[in-house]
Amino acid sequence: MRSYTKVDKLRIAQTNKYNVFGCLLREGPINRAAIAKRTDLSVPTIMAITGELLEKGAVRSLGKGESSAGKPPEMLEAVPEAFYVAGVDLGRTAVRLVVNNAAAREVLCYTEATGDPFPEDVFIARLEKLIRSRLAALGGAGDRVLGAGVAMPGLIESGTGRVLISPDFGWKDVPLQENLGGKLPFRVLVRNSNHALALNESSRRGDEYKATFCVNLGYGIGAALVVGEELYSGAGGTSGELGHSVVEKNGPLCKCGNSGCLESVASGEAIARQASTVVAHHGRSKMAELCGGDPSKLDAGMVFQAAEAGDRGAQKIIAAAADYIGMGLSTAVNVLDPDRVILCGGLMKNGPSFLDMIRSGMEDHIMPRSDRKLEVTAGTLEEFSTAQGACRALMNVLWAERALPI
Amino acid sequence: MRSYTKVDKLRIAQTNKYNVFGCLLREGPINRAAIAKRTDLSVPTIMAITGELLEKGAVRSLGKGESSAGKPPEMLEAVPEAFYVAGVDLGRTAVRLVVNNAAAREVLCYTEATGDPFPEDVFIARLEKLIRSRLAALGGAGDRVLGAGVAMPGLIESGTGRVLISPDFGWKDVPLQENLGGKLPFRVLVRNSNHALALNESSRRGDEYKATFCVNLGYGIGAALVVGEELYSGAGGTSGELGHSVVEKNGPLCKCGNSGCLESVASGEAIARQASTVVAHHGRSKMAELCGGDPSKLDAGMVFQAAEAGDRGAQKIIAAAADYIGMGLSTAVNVLDPDRVILCGGLMKNGPSFLDMIRSGMEDHIMPRSDRKLEVTAGTLEEFSTAQGACRALMNVLWAERALPI
Repeated sequence: MRSYTKVDKLRIAQTNKYNVFGCLLREGPINRAAIAKRTDLSVPTIMAITGELLEKGAVRSLGKGESSAGKPPEMLEAVPEAFYVAGVDLGRTAVRLVVNNAAAREVLCYTEATGDPFPEDVFIARLEKLIRSRLAALGGAGDRVLGAGVAMPGLIESGTGRVLISPDFGWKDVPLQENLGGKLPFRVLVRNSNHALALNESSRRGDEYKATFCVNLGYGIGAALVVGEELYSGAGGTSGELGHSVVEKNGPLCKCGNSGCLESVASGEAIARQASTVVAHHGRSKMAELCGGDPSKLDAGMVFQAAEAGDRGAQKIIAAAADYIGMGLSTAVNVLDPDRVILCGGLMKNGPSFLDMIRSGMEDHIMPRSDRKLEVTAGTLEEFSTAQGACRALMNVLWAERALPI
Repeated sequence: MRSYTKVDKLRIAQTNKYNVFGCLLREGPINRAAIAKRTDLSVPTIMAITGELLEKGAVRSLGKGESSAGKPPEMLEAVPEAFYVAGVDLGRTAVRLVVNNAAAREVLCYTEATGDPFPEDVFIARLEKLIRSRLAALGGAGDRVLGAGVAMPGLIESGTGRVLISPDFGWKDVPLQENLGGKLPFRVLVRNSNHALALNESSRRGDEYKATFCVNLGYGIGAALVVGEELYSGAGGTSGELGHSVVEKNGPLCKCGNSGCLESVASGEAIARQASTVVAHHGRSKMAELCGGDPSKLDAGMVFQAAEAGDRGAQKIIAAAADYIGMGLSTAVNVLDPDRVILCGGLMKNGPSFLDMIRSGMEDHIMPRSDRKLEVTAGTLEEFSTAQGACRALMNVLWAERALPI
């Protein structure tokens, strides 16, 4: 009732063109009559639009198809090499890069150690070189890269892509999108890592879900809500900080400065910290064995391994973490009413029993409803999922802004 | 990228008509040239649309306006009596009804005791009579009522308006929208009370907020998220159950069957329950005085009153409730990143100090951020706010479906 959305002819023409290109990407090779049918547009309109797309090199002809009667129609398909988008996952331990073609197929993936992120300017300059050198390796295709989506852990200001604070990187108020964008010859879009991951994980599984809550259980704990295919990013772009839900009123101090946050009792870091205390103060155990007697070498993976081997202390730590995660998720489910929860991140790589324990923790704390339709699953756990999400975030923006070279 | 949204001429024409009518509602009396300017449409288009609206009786002429030069233009305005919508707030103690005209002005409001909600069919039949008799009192205008929005506490299935469960009413699986809609000669739309309240409270304060989290602190505790002007209702329509966030891991049993829910320690009911225990087991106190020595007569209002008068026990109960509410809200803010939190409901009627205590509780638990732009305010606390929200929910649907008689 409030806004005047004028529907003008230019917008209609663009929408029709993007619909046709989308149809070719998804359903090609396809003939013009079939496109007309699928997009509910007239054949003359399809003729004009495909003519333009052919001329721009975004679509190509595969010659005549087959026909049971009459003249066989010309088959068209989108040109996968028409353009490319890059996705960068800035993790604390590794930087991951993927490049997708127009058909969203991965044509390159690359990893290197993150190393020292200080000073920020030096790190950003290194990042620029890394991206340039990888794209150069693509040859001529490198010139047809439309931009790079960059996923970064921490609070990212929406719109500007400024890193407000990133505890993992120790960064505060770094204009990453502006600085990196100024160095590269194409669009740069910075998004929160958990948001990027959620975009990719939610869209890979079909479109039948109305609301997906995707959780990243790793060294820290973050999350994101995807409504239909759209990320809900919040008023300032910093939604999803599930790790800082208070689950233990007077619990351990969290790195955010508060106490009893989910992250302080159930993250990979918290699991390792609790295990270190046990190893430092008790005698022999599987955990002590795995870290060679040095508590500072313990990581969450070792605790899972020890629990698997029957270590009572490790089992208690894992069980408590799963229960807290179930509790935090229950609150999110009660408030958000999603029909799907996807659990991703390093902690989920420790086998299906952890998923079962979290499910059981949720059952203990979720508001009981006989009719609740909620699927709780593990994510793909693929190494490049966040980088792919960064690609997807950029593609969504280019698509919405009608900024593709078509 | 996925959907083919065909923009056809009929849709454009309808959108233009609704834009013009919206402009007249908001900015009339106004002349045709000014409408053309505001809506970015041509004067001939405005001539055609206003002609149609005049013919349908949705718009009327006020004659010539004034002009500094040239012919004075004809001034038009939307006809407030063109149509009406009703809003019903089904509360456990009172049923409230409002009727708004096309200009969203209240032309009728009415309250009566809810009484016994059993059997459900009898109650729904009573509700039908109540609505019919009130609308009959409007005279001819009653025939121009487009429908009734009905706000009901509990889990309401989206789409069907079926009451899945309403602990306040003791209802389970009642097809309220279908049954009441079958009895009344117009559209009936059933929504959750907290959702309706949030729609009204968030829209009354201007449109400059991106995400509003509206909380109803009363006998129970519920909430809703409004993104821009749209309610986020969740996958199944049952979002906002903040009252069942676990804030005390092994806390008191909640009526939902779990333990340590926010509602079990901080709702009006929980405040009264804790006060009863104190009064039953301790000697004289302000609380005992206010309830005439009968703990079963205590309500949250008396506890606030006793706290105000210096009763230490009452003060402790209120302070603990405010801290728990602050904790629950912090989790919601961390996950949802709203730019506004509106606190409504009976508990908020106890003066500004409770709001301050909640704010302070939030500060203790929210993820610290120097740049957070978050406003935490009290709601209007108006008696008919939920009923108005039910009206608004229906109007939003009629507007979106282009189902107004224009």
